[in-house]
Amino acid sequence: MGLREENKSRRMARVMSSIRLFLARNPIEDLMMDGIAAASRISVGTLYNYYGSKEMMLVAYCRDRMQECFAAARRLVENPPESAEAAYFELLSIYLRGFGALERPLVGSMIRILIVNQARGTGVAGFQRNAFDQLRVLTRKLKDSGTLPTSAREDSIAFVLFGICSDLLFQFSLCNEVDIETQVSRLGQCINLIYTGLAAREDTPPNLRGTNT
Amino acid sequence: MGLREENKSRRMARVMSSIRLFLARNPIEDLMMDGIAAASRISVGTLYNYYGSKEMMLVAYCRDRMQECFAAARRLVENPPESAEAAYFELLSIYLRGFGALERPLVGSMIRILIVNQARGTGVAGFQRNAFDQLRVLTRKLKDSGTLPTSAREDSIAFVLFGICSDLLFQFSLCNEVDIETQVSRLGQCINLIYTGLAAREDTPPNLRGTNT
Repeated sequence: MGLREENKSRRMARVMSSIRLFLARNPIEDLMMDGIAAASRISVGTLYNYYGSKEMMLVAYCRDRMQECFAAARRLVENPPESAEAAYFELLSIYLRGFGALERPLVGSMIRILIVNQARGTGVAGFQRNAFDQLRVLTRKLKDSGTLPTSAREDSIAFVLFGICSDLLFQFSLCNEVDIETQVSRLGQCINLIYTGLAAREDTPPNLRGTNT
Repeated sequence: MGLREENKSRRMARVMSSIRLFLARNPIEDLMMDGIAAASRISVGTLYNYYGSKEMMLVAYCRDRMQECFAAARRLVENPPESAEAAYFELLSIYLRGFGALERPLVGSMIRILIVNQARGTGVAGFQRNAFDQLRVLTRKLKDSGTLPTSAREDSIAFVLFGICSDLLFQFSLCNEVDIETQVSRLGQCINLIYTGLAAREDTPPNLRGTNT
């Protein structure tokens, strides 16, 4: 890394800590680019030059805070559990807990950004573009191993699971009394329902229903 | 109805049209109680006396605009289609289209209010308290008629379907390029996936899977 890049990366690290310090004491609505620039000892122009917009700066901040969560998600997709139900649950609970460690109001803003981008078909790198790709890769692997039938539809599965996670995260961000572990357990119930299907009958022989663990 | 009640109901009708006129020309963030009171020729105190808060006034406005949608939903639950997939799809597409006829930014505010209330277990009368009850009634009827197995879980089904509809409505409210019919057809795909279940195999004999139409 040259001196120029080193300087840039040092300054960007300062921006990340300025945001964290700011959000620890202030509502997200009060966060302004000039305040963050001043606290990070750079010009507002440099700040825009680095991130493009306040929105993308906040996305970069979340991505930075969620690095470990992204790494854990990648490892899971590399080497998923054999059961489809466990695979989806473990992947998505990593993301829920990753968001759960962020400032609550920030989670609401991020989900709005992710929903807009998902609806426009322009994923946000590191978030749902990855999560969507990961859900697709997971579904393909589960089909290849015979755990899911070849008829399983990768895009519908990703869409339904993304919708449920958005809703669980919105509840989390809007209600202080809802904690992230409650949302993780609700996710488990939802995935179980989707895995089994409404029409699943208790008397259906297990060998006709995949590995329903 | 006494003169007093008549006056009140006339004034409330004026409030509803003032809100509609206001939202036709202005962003929802600019809506203020004193402006709506003045436009409706009543005092701010009377306005608060009628609705309690700006939030509940907006809920009342949506409820008023969605009266036909609520009536259609009640009729459907009275006399549901035989197929579970069709029953859930028809009920929820009535609500999606009802919201789709409202001002887009208002839909986002309403969904936030409904999500908070759902997470707190305090439904908003006329919205999800009804929709939730209706989903439960529908599920019970479908179980009684043998369309769904007795093991079908009313609350999980309501929770998953509510989550998907919230997400579809958030996309609608946040993205002008997404129209409500796109969301209705996505709802159909999601319900089909949930109906069938991830583990459904094409080679599963139909008689073991309920009336999968």
